[in-house]
Amino acid sequence: MTLSVAIAGASGYAGGEVLRLMAAHPELEVRTVTAHSNAGQPLIDVHPHLRSYADLELRETTAETLAGHDIVVLALPHGASGAIAAELPDDVLVLDCGADHRLTSEAAWQRFYGGEYHGAWAYGLPELIHVDGTRQREKLVGARRVAVPGCNVTAVSLGLVPGIRAGVIEAHDTTAALAVGPSGAGRTLRTDLLASELLGSAAPYAVGGVHRHIPEILQNVALAGAADASISFTPVLVPMARGILATVTARLAPGVDEAGLRAAWVDAYADEPFVHVLPAGRFPTTASAVGANTALIGLALDADAQRAVIVVALDNLVKGTAGAAVQSLNLALGLPETLGLPVNGVAP
Amino acid sequence: MTLSVAIAGASGYAGGEVLRLMAAHPELEVRTVTAHSNAGQPLIDVHPHLRSYADLELRETTAETLAGHDIVVLALPHGASGAIAAELPDDVLVLDCGADHRLTSEAAWQRFYGGEYHGAWAYGLPELIHVDGTRQREKLVGARRVAVPGCNVTAVSLGLVPGIRAGVIEAHDTTAALAVGPSGAGRTLRTDLLASELLGSAAPYAVGGVHRHIPEILQNVALAGAADASISFTPVLVPMARGILATVTARLAPGVDEAGLRAAWVDAYADEPFVHVLPAGRFPTTASAVGANTALIGLALDADAQRAVIVVALDNLVKGTAGAAVQSLNLALGLPETLGLPVNGVAP
Amino acid sequence: MTLSVAIAGASGYAGGEVLRLMAAHPELEVRTVTAHSNAGQPLIDVHPHLRSYADLELRETTAETLAGHDIVVLALPHGASGAIAAELPDDVLVLDCGADHRLTSEAAWQRFYGGEYHGAWAYGLPELIHVDGTRQREKLVGARRVAVPGCNVTAVSLGLVPGIRAGVIEAHDTTAALAVGPSGAGRTLRTDLLASELLGSAAPYAVGGVHRHIPEILQNVALAGAADASISFTPVLVPMARGILATVTARLAPGVDEAGLRAAWVDAYADEPFVHVLPAGRFPTTASAVGANTALIGLALDADAQRAVIVVALDNLVKGTAGAAVQSLNLALGLPETLGLPVNGVAP
Amino acid sequence: MTLSVAIAGASGYAGGEVLRLMAAHPELEVRTVTAHSNAGQPLIDVHPHLRSYADLELRETTAETLAGHDIVVLALPHGASGAIAAELPDDVLVLDCGADHRLTSEAAWQRFYGGEYHGAWAYGLPELIHVDGTRQREKLVGARRVAVPGCNVTAVSLGLVPGIRAGVIEAHDTTAALAVGPSGAGRTLRTDLLASELLGSAAPYAVGGVHRHIPEILQNVALAGAADASISFTPVLVPMARGILATVTARLAPGVDEAGLRAAWVDAYADEPFVHVLPAGRFPTTASAVGANTALIGLALDADAQRAVIVVALDNLVKGTAGAAVQSLNLALGLPETLGLPVNGVAP
Repeated sequence: MTLSVAIAGASGYAGGEVLRLMAAHPELEVRTVTAHSNAGQPLIDVHPHLRSYADLELRETTAETLAGHDIVVLALPHGASGAIAAELPDDVLVLDCGADHRLTSEAAWQRFYGGEYHGAWAYGLPELIHVDGTRQREKLVGARRVAVPGCNVTAVSLGLVPGIRAGVIEAHDTTAALAVGPSGAGRTLRTDLLASELLGSAAPYAVGGVHRHIPEILQNVALAGAADASISFTPVLVPMARGILATVTARLAPGVDEAGLRAAWVDAYADEPFVHVLPAGRFPTTASAVGANTALIGLALDADAQRAVIVVALDNLVKGTAGAAVQSLNLALGLPETLGLPVNGVAP
Repeated sequence: MTLSVAIAGASGYAGGEVLRLMAAHPELEVRTVTAHSNAGQPLIDVHPHLRSYADLELRETTAETLAGHDIVVLALPHGASGAIAAELPDDVLVLDCGADHRLTSEAAWQRFYGGEYHGAWAYGLPELIHVDGTRQREKLVGARRVAVPGCNVTAVSLGLVPGIRAGVIEAHDTTAALAVGPSGAGRTLRTDLLASELLGSAAPYAVGGVHRHIPEILQNVALAGAADASISFTPVLVPMARGILATVTARLAPGVDEAGLRAAWVDAYADEPFVHVLPAGRFPTTASAVGANTALIGLALDADAQRAVIVVALDNLVKGTAGAAVQSLNLALGLPETLGLPVNGVAP
Repeated sequence: MTLSVAIAGASGYAGGEVLRLMAAHPELEVRTVTAHSNAGQPLIDVHPHLRSYADLELRETTAETLAGHDIVVLALPHGASGAIAAELPDDVLVLDCGADHRLTSEAAWQRFYGGEYHGAWAYGLPELIHVDGTRQREKLVGARRVAVPGCNVTAVSLGLVPGIRAGVIEAHDTTAALAVGPSGAGRTLRTDLLASELLGSAAPYAVGGVHRHIPEILQNVALAGAADASISFTPVLVPMARGILATVTARLAPGVDEAGLRAAWVDAYADEPFVHVLPAGRFPTTASAVGANTALIGLALDADAQRAVIVVALDNLVKGTAGAAVQSLNLALGLPETLGLPVNGVAP
Repeated sequence: MTLSVAIAGASGYAGGEVLRLMAAHPELEVRTVTAHSNAGQPLIDVHPHLRSYADLELRETTAETLAGHDIVVLALPHGASGAIAAELPDDVLVLDCGADHRLTSEAAWQRFYGGEYHGAWAYGLPELIHVDGTRQREKLVGARRVAVPGCNVTAVSLGLVPGIRAGVIEAHDTTAALAVGPSGAGRTLRTDLLASELLGSAAPYAVGGVHRHIPEILQNVALAGAADASISFTPVLVPMARGILATVTARLAPGVDEAGLRAAWVDAYADEPFVHVLPAGRFPTTASAVGANTALIGLALDADAQRAVIVVALDNLVKGTAGAAVQSLNLALGLPETLGLPVNGVAP
């Protein structure tokens, strides 16, 4: 079986990473790539690292060019995928790497994004635990419309959910500060994303509860049973191309000790192929996750501060985007969940 | 008036930065520099950027070589300055860039450092506000023994204290996650400080309430009147040589609004030459502070999370160490507080 | 005496660095700053590191706003300064940080830049040695129109000229490969200048003899007496905000030995305050020059390859641009040449 | 068929990269990993990015622990592999990533390395063209002792050899300046390899004809028929963990034009799976090669300088070391040459 794939928005970083991962997937063949301003160019001109696609050319992003494939991946700016998706047949697997179909609350959509609301699709974070103990992966089996999570959301949700569901931390009054690489912002011409600005600098943005990933985190936490969740969320751009290092803290539930705390995450991820809890006293670096579809988690109990500290490292373009898309695709189509996905990072 | 200066530990990063700043100070002349393993070498061999000191040679760190100067700066590993300082005359101004004389609590010293406790000196953070509204600078006038604060401590204390004293945030259950450059760890041969390890990576350390700067932060906050302060503190090494970007959060006091919140910091620092509160909606980057003796502060009120977010940027080697030393020195000796200190950063 | 300064193009990196240096200059006061797209904004919004200019506002770049100052610095894209300069009075000192008035050959201008040729101004590289042994600084005394050299040109010219004039290397068939930071390309929104592209990467550009700095290098070398000079010149963008590390090679003249080679540069720069030849076996890093108006030079004789290797490090924004402007300004106005210029770098 | 592999020196960067590549190779299983100071530790403690090896433990590097495998990879400091290799059976495939068995000239060994000379092994650069038009890969078929080339050597040799053999450039008086990441120097505790030193800096080393890779380059060029080869070779450390960007120049042979020049490289590498010549006007970045076993080449003819400029980008740990080892291993054992080797890089 070889499944045919089209990628819309293939000239960006998310699209490029989907291409990189799919090149190593035994059941997939990317046949069509589209872009906006780069249409007509060889793909390799915009992604010179993707030698295996030396023969592909970028085409216009239209429903026609995307038609006739088993799988369509949308790697477009938010607001752009709703209309395109509506034109694609129901039996085509469509994965949206953008934000258009992540939020189940139209009110949250309107507050954080605005514009037409297109409804929520099956949410592509397989490891997410629901209050009843089931995993989100069950919702992905057989799905034909998948919303790939936001990269920061994946990091923070994987960090918070096991503890909340196990009752060892509170969902109320959590905090997350993230060191993030600029590739998460896309191949966008903005002054603050210039190398001269970011080299040698750490730069916060969307400070004070305004980042669009906040409602998505709270939505995930709510699925784990938290009614009163809240989070102070601050991303900080740092000079590394890729990677998210999320420092998440949460109030300890009364009476929790170190062993009880740790057990919540260890148990939750014991059978997960892509999420790993490090031994006590060890904490992950983003370098350990770069290029891999893994999320690495370190845990500590701060008795003085009465908070748990959960540090999560992942590659925003892999486990945070393109790897999540491929993992969800595997589940949707009944393929082995880990098929074609790298578990080893590229370090140093 | 020219005052004669000796610097012990001049081959490290803190010592080098003291030298850089003192070269621009009109009343100081560094006559003696000492080191451990590099003794006997020209200073410029270990600090090739310090051309104005091309004639100085590193000598052994002994009480004899340090004797006979008006000012002695100790830039030594913690545990080393207590003994040296005891041998220096009382009327010599001694500034300790290490940790030996920062903590007023012997119990805190024993818990976080261990070894012999040498007592606390006048604390070199002039902008620190006491509960009675006085500033720490008053304690520095005429001092002859000064403990230069820890770099992370300065960032977090400057961020927390105005709000706590004004009663707009709670001192209990604060959090701080810091993106920090490796120069704060000194010129130390450790695998995790290698360029190959840190380039492209964010790496947390001392996670879970064990960092030595925690008791010092709480000590400062207590001076502002907080009895029940606590902090979850997590530093993350990121690939920039210098700089601290501290994301500090604190619970809002009941009924505080944006204007009331902002007023606490604006009022506290209105007359400070080296601490600046940015306008609403703007947040600092470390690049804006590199090379300067400034701390830049951005503020937001997150109504959903019911937390204030205080972002503080400074250069760990300047306002975080060497600049604080020179600023304290100016105060101790009755010179203008800002003398010789840069207010403009080096960017990009 | 306080001289009044206007800076056109003050929102860019070169303009920002001129501002930084002038803040430390005792005889200058920047009163007017202009920009194109940022006109109307506070200067500190675009240069948040320049706290000493918190009261300045960017105005439109017109001859009117620039009028009435003793000194006008043009930090504009090439092609823009010719027309502006023509409208300024002859007795105003005008320093052009752009390329418009560097080349003495209209043919070279047409080949490498194109468009209207505006003639050459006094060339702002004081250390440049002419064939008759005089220095370029003599040409700057009393000048009212100064062309600030290209940053790469300064690095390569300082490296080549002493050896060529002394006859120890050949001017024919030289090579230069430069590791350069992206700030030299300005605050320009180009995909290849994005942090995501450059972090973790080295990227050559203008390969094969097409870089605009080539004719300017050959012009400088010709002044030193070389009739047949040629250079293979390749710049490579690397992930550091500032700095140029030029590796220059030249054929050895017959019979030259190590001592004879070294003497050429040592003698040439013995009295120069801003150019330093390192001892045998030592080579400069760009970190040693960042923030300073210095050029550091290391030399080796490769007997097997029969080439001299001259490594030059400088800060493209200081000795490569803004420092050269201030140094030239000092000479033009009869001030001490080193006034207000930093000799120590900011490292690490 | 599954072949058993032991890796000596597995705790270093080269060893880690061999492990990463072998994890994706369908015919190999790494069963033994050894180290010096880290013996006894879980492998994943020193390589936290290598999740697929979570069960392996580092053992002592002895002939006994290495015995009983089909393949032994030595990733040891130079001088260490000769003795170990002598104790391994002749029919075991031994690949030495160090320098001990690269040079065919004992005189060159003594001059550049010194100590006992162990003779040369089959040289693991399959694409190398000999004067008779054969490729080095033929020498690797059936080999049981393979010397993996130096990383810089691979970059420069791939750049020079086609032009020299085709007669379009001269082998005499070539130059190479390389921007290189610090991982090529290994996981070594040296001050100049600290992150604080290298972040924001470019740092040359081994300047002036003393780098140990020089005789190896000349040896390769001699195989292509050059009798009088010489090279001025300068490596410059830049702040990226991996990658080599080699700017190589060579005198043009008389009468060569652009088409003739380009044809030499295009023809030489037309059928090579891992070496690619970019179209005219395009030049490679190291980011395009990171993580992949590819070398990317850009070419220009500088008519003014009468030199060809050949820019080569590769990942020092992949095509420069571990990928070359696996590619050679495939050839030695009769496997498809490209088996298990990535052709796509990891960018941005």
